[in-house]
Amino acid sequence: MTAKKHPVSAAEPSQTAAPTTTPINVTETIPSRTLPKGFRFAAAACGLRRKNRLDLGVVIADKPCSAAGVFTQNLVKAAPVVLCEKHLAAGASRIRAIVVNSGNANCANGSTGMRASRATVKTAARALRCRDAQILVCSTGVIGLPLPVEKIVAALPELSLTAAAAPANYDGFIHSIMTTDTRPKWASATCRIGGKTVRLLGCAKGAGMIHPNMATMLAFLLTDAAASPRVLHSALAEVAARTFNSITVDGDTSTNDTALLLASGESKSWGAPVITAKGRGYKAFVAALEKVCMKLALAIVSDGEGASRVVEIEVRGASSDIAAKTVAQTIATSPLVKTALAGGDPNWGRILAAAGRAGVQFRPERAAIRMAGIRVYDRGRALPFDEGAAHEKLLSTEVPIVMDLRAGRGRARVWTCDFTAEYVHINASYRT
Amino acid sequence: MTAKKHPVSAAEPSQTAAPTTTPINVTETIPSRTLPKGFRFAAAACGLRRKNRLDLGVVIADKPCSAAGVFTQNLVKAAPVVLCEKHLAAGASRIRAIVVNSGNANCANGSTGMRASRATVKTAARALRCRDAQILVCSTGVIGLPLPVEKIVAALPELSLTAAAAPANYDGFIHSIMTTDTRPKWASATCRIGGKTVRLLGCAKGAGMIHPNMATMLAFLLTDAAASPRVLHSALAEVAARTFNSITVDGDTSTNDTALLLASGESKSWGAPVITAKGRGYKAFVAALEKVCMKLALAIVSDGEGASRVVEIEVRGASSDIAAKTVAQTIATSPLVKTALAGGDPNWGRILAAAGRAGVQFRPERAAIRMAGIRVYDRGRALPFDEGAAHEKLLSTEVPIVMDLRAGRGRARVWTCDFTAEYVHINASYRT
Repeated sequence: MTAKKHPVSAAEPSQTAAPTTTPINVTETIPSRTLPKGFRFAAAACGLRRKNRLDLGVVIADKPCSAAGVFTQNLVKAAPVVLCEKHLAAGASRIRAIVVNSGNANCANGSTGMRASRATVKTAARALRCRDAQILVCSTGVIGLPLPVEKIVAALPELSLTAAAAPANYDGFIHSIMTTDTRPKWASATCRIGGKTVRLLGCAKGAGMIHPNMATMLAFLLTDAAASPRVLHSALAEVAARTFNSITVDGDTSTNDTALLLASGESKSWGAPVITAKGRGYKAFVAALEKVCMKLALAIVSDGEGASRVVEIEVRGASSDIAAKTVAQTIATSPLVKTALAGGDPNWGRILAAAGRAGVQFRPERAAIRMAGIRVYDRGRALPFDEGAAHEKLLSTEVPIVMDLRAGRGRARVWTCDFTAEYVHINASYRT
Repeated sequence: MTAKKHPVSAAEPSQTAAPTTTPINVTETIPSRTLPKGFRFAAAACGLRRKNRLDLGVVIADKPCSAAGVFTQNLVKAAPVVLCEKHLAAGASRIRAIVVNSGNANCANGSTGMRASRATVKTAARALRCRDAQILVCSTGVIGLPLPVEKIVAALPELSLTAAAAPANYDGFIHSIMTTDTRPKWASATCRIGGKTVRLLGCAKGAGMIHPNMATMLAFLLTDAAASPRVLHSALAEVAARTFNSITVDGDTSTNDTALLLASGESKSWGAPVITAKGRGYKAFVAALEKVCMKLALAIVSDGEGASRVVEIEVRGASSDIAAKTVAQTIATSPLVKTALAGGDPNWGRILAAAGRAGVQFRPERAAIRMAGIRVYDRGRALPFDEGAAHEKLLSTEVPIVMDLRAGRGRARVWTCDFTAEYVHINASYRT
């Protein structure tokens, strides 16, 4: 996977050249103008997966940069998650690189697993002549298999050389982090900070074991904005709640969920001010970050294992936003709702039944349900609708479901995918 | 579906003739000796489902009998559930009949649905010359379709006649309550009360939307023991927690879950004393009831939609029994665990990850996991095992999984089935 060389200038990106958003799931080479300044990338097939499959990726910041991360809330945390959290706590303003491997989650490998992640970090730190705590590390793949870290240690020094790592290698990087993903996922945005443009670029991987809690499987967000780790963390936590933490493929929270945000600060060179929590630029930055994260989150759902459609579940009229999210997530994870959606069956009774077991108080006889724009249930009874037309609409690639509990002002939206026989085929023999 | 006539005597069943337990899922005619005295049955194809498919069943007690029920905890309760609860509250010691229809859950049909259930009750009460509150009513099938109650009202009077209803028609009854079940489910037991034998016979239906909370889909338990409704309820609630409420097929709690226990008291005629809460017979009765309910619960799981195997998940060493059950149920409902089980994949990492998101505190680095008797994980790391042999063992029809959290003395067992592509096929177009 070699990418074309392209000129890298430190000039401010032109407003016309840099579109506000880019389409998700584009497999062609990412336009160089969308790349935030200050980062280089490299990828290699180091032998963790099948021959010649990219499985090791590196993001290198030209200079120490500001960083923030949100991680899985699963009690079982993979070794790289534990190490990432530690390194961010030790010095989130001096991060030099992220090292990612796919094909092995390095989770539940005990002290051997922790030693393997430390060895990865140490090798990268030596190559980049920095301290261990300046390196972040992520792994994704099967849980509980020993990580053949010697393969990573052998391949890493060459990747970290300036010759191998280049801005144009982003394409290779986003391929190296994929597991059951059928396509790479990236999104970009720009925003104006103090009248100057800054770029934001993100990529993510994830298709199964997706029910993020504070972060998603793996997402890497890069910007040339300038901001302190504290400001980055505040923006990332706020945005993750509305994007990555509002999607579900199978209700299973991964042990390796990690979203990292790195800010190179290069935009200072074309006059963009540092983003502060109370400054006017903060809102613009959060909006751009949300745009990127939402695109990545939806790309994960639409690439959900075996998925044929994305379903947006909006719950309104709950007693609180939290109650609304609980009901929405119960509907979004119900196997019966999700299999009906696979068949395009307007079986709203399953939506009502799932809401009823969510543990949230409401009066079913006051509630209302709409599927794909069709009112199917209102105030305790079925509404007549054209079954054939409803079936057709439910076979779309994007299906909205709205449930109004009429019990308050709380609302939430979550995104899920349908549950197909293909999901079972993929997961019945993932390891073997 | 006509059953052979057989002599019904009021004599005590002989100990040798009545086996303590009978095999589950037997489709041949149920031996007359296992039938508790004092009940008759009838079934008809009244047109709720496809032509000539039994869809209406009746249990008639010869005399008013003692009854108890446990019902769904889903906030959305079907009309028949609401009516059943009301009638048991009004007079659980004078119940005359249970009327059950399949093919339509009569749920979410508003006041029309409630009127339909009331019309069913009224028709049965008139035929049996008793009051409405002496009739219990159950429905199972699709949610949110109007119940064509006129078909039930037309068929019911004839069914209630002594000529149509006979003890030998039990076979027809258990077929009339089936929906996606591939086989009828019944179990029987006897126990000694004051030196005299009493019989217990139960049947159940259920294959999908199975994650009972206080009862399962539909279960009907009959005994010729004599006991007050209060004693029956205490026994049923205790037993349901360890049996019906410990199984799951898909994590979806039904809106119609109902388990009813009727005691005719006929055993008084051969000298068996009334069972009281503090009497010695109570324990024997609970043990027999648990035997029957456990067999029915396991029969439901093994007939789970698309299931190819039953999986027992035992969690030990939790901080409490409740914590153990929470972890066990999180594992038992994880799509990733259940699809791996479909493929016979010893992917214990998914078990560990599911336990980690259960919301229960434990230290993963102290826990241990065994699959099909093979130790696969202990104290933070994978144990070496023969993959091929493990795969073979996991393809059995019964697979035990044991997870020891080593955090206390709490323990729980739950039973689930694997998650196959067939489940998706069945549920993608259940209605259409």
